[in-house]
Amino acid sequence: MVAVGGNALTAAHQSGAADEIAANATRMARSLAHLAGVGWRLAVVHGNGPQVGNLSIQQEEASAVVPAQPLHQLAAMTQGQLGGVLVREIDRLCGPGTAVAVVTHVQVDRDDPAFAHPTKPIGPFFTADRAAELARLWGWHVVEDSGRGYRRVVTSPAPIDIVEMEAIRLLLAAGHIVLAAGGGGIAVSRATDGGLTGVDAVIDKDHSAAVLAAALGARELYLLTGVDTVLLDFGTPHERPVHVLTPQEAAHHMEQGQFPAGSMGPKIGAALRFLREGGQRVFITSADRLADVAAGYADVGTRIESVPAAIASVT
Amino acid sequence: MVAVGGNALTAAHQSGAADEIAANATRMARSLAHLAGVGWRLAVVHGNGPQVGNLSIQQEEASAVVPAQPLHQLAAMTQGQLGGVLVREIDRLCGPGTAVAVVTHVQVDRDDPAFAHPTKPIGPFFTADRAAELARLWGWHVVEDSGRGYRRVVTSPAPIDIVEMEAIRLLLAAGHIVLAAGGGGIAVSRATDGGLTGVDAVIDKDHSAAVLAAALGARELYLLTGVDTVLLDFGTPHERPVHVLTPQEAAHHMEQGQFPAGSMGPKIGAALRFLREGGQRVFITSADRLADVAAGYADVGTRIESVPAAIASVT
Repeated sequence: MVAVGGNALTAAHQSGAADEIAANATRMARSLAHLAGVGWRLAVVHGNGPQVGNLSIQQEEASAVVPAQPLHQLAAMTQGQLGGVLVREIDRLCGPGTAVAVVTHVQVDRDDPAFAHPTKPIGPFFTADRAAELARLWGWHVVEDSGRGYRRVVTSPAPIDIVEMEAIRLLLAAGHIVLAAGGGGIAVSRATDGGLTGVDAVIDKDHSAAVLAAALGARELYLLTGVDTVLLDFGTPHERPVHVLTPQEAAHHMEQGQFPAGSMGPKIGAALRFLREGGQRVFITSADRLADVAAGYADVGTRIESVPAAIASVT
Repeated sequence: MVAVGGNALTAAHQSGAADEIAANATRMARSLAHLAGVGWRLAVVHGNGPQVGNLSIQQEEASAVVPAQPLHQLAAMTQGQLGGVLVREIDRLCGPGTAVAVVTHVQVDRDDPAFAHPTKPIGPFFTADRAAELARLWGWHVVEDSGRGYRRVVTSPAPIDIVEMEAIRLLLAAGHIVLAAGGGGIAVSRATDGGLTGVDAVIDKDHSAAVLAAALGARELYLLTGVDTVLLDFGTPHERPVHVLTPQEAAHHMEQGQFPAGSMGPKIGAALRFLREGGQRVFITSADRLADVAAGYADVGTRIESVPAAIASVT
């Protein structure tokens, strides 16, 4: 069970051009193909923050000539776009038809307090002036993000349930590498007629990966990000990698503000959720080092697990 | 096996707004749910002409601020968008998790003569002046389409093979309604490294439906369009519906120019391909009348089959 960050498909300094996305997907596919080759069953959740943000700009820029689609439709589009790219890159290494991307809906609660407070950054960074202009022009919520500039933030409710769970299980059991809940899934909530209706939100893909991993009964969850190892006191003279954490230690560091809401925070939150719901271990690392971490290298990646670290390190 | 036209999701007079698409999908889902309810196994191929055209306009309008994605990525996006809409509308009637949309790649031949002659109309209609301007600005190929105005045309090679065939079979066998090869599929061709690479083209969804139906060993293929029944001498004083055709008669009418390249032509071509590849019967009708035609009503829809019409009508 591997969750792949959207930033891993378009890095912060990249524009989001198709060739950049494909090159990033190739690197990720290499790690995934390696794990599949040594017998792993893999469900992969990719992110979509940069891509869904770019789509939302295109909607507004062209709104005079083409109707803008709502946010949940844009999230759905990124499942086709990024699911397709990852399928092609995995299939290139593992054979055609190995990887399958399932358009996935994820149920959220309309009463989730997240609807009152948009927190999930999407799309590119803007200057303060441009961000203020877009807030006025397009009604966007914008915030300063991690000292790197201003970004649009959208509602990001907690995932409850994955609608296409049975299909995902079936495909995994048949040996496919399954791409599911891409971009955190298309957010839906229960309508008065009993159906599920699209909701304008971008669910955090790490949290959806935790829900998917728990539903699959996976023992391990891998959360991929831009760094090989979680850093404590990030950006200070005391910055240092941490290789093993108990859930208690991780929760403590989170309370101390060690992990920003727009980047490492959701990963730690997702890890803690997975461990509460029966998971054994969570690893946080980069796409490039995924295979090394999975092979048990102790000097790379961050492992979060419930057993005491001293015992865990010799298992 | 049902192929659903893209025009059935955004009619020619509609703008392509999300609520229009959802309302059209609801009508289609009603027919599909009815068939599923009486025991049919259903694979559904939706079109994407209006939607992929709108996305291509957004790419160009916003290209100064966001990198334009290539056409095969836009086709992939419509699979997430429209697959998701149809899944939600079918699930509303049949229960959550019933319908599953698979992001589907369809192989084409790089040497297909279609690459020299763009023929597939996508997106909205323009005036002659505006079409000429877009051809100059954005490098589009534009043509006059069916007397209704000017449209962008793109390359539309013949589908050869559906990459995700095994996954589609598995999901159908488990009782899911499967949405596959949406918009004709993401076009891919064999690269020098043996992998499949995205190709900038929009495959005709009726032809992909014929390939899918033949690969599934389906006996019947339903092609949905804006009219209940195929019309001969369309738009003339001799205009009349035709309810039964042999492949020979259909081919003859096609040679006589009865079926325009941008609308009924591909449906008849796809029907003939399916019948050549082992299919028994093809029906052409509207989403609203699908259930009636499937139930055997003789006064609606057009049936194309190899056996003599006189015998077919009493089976």
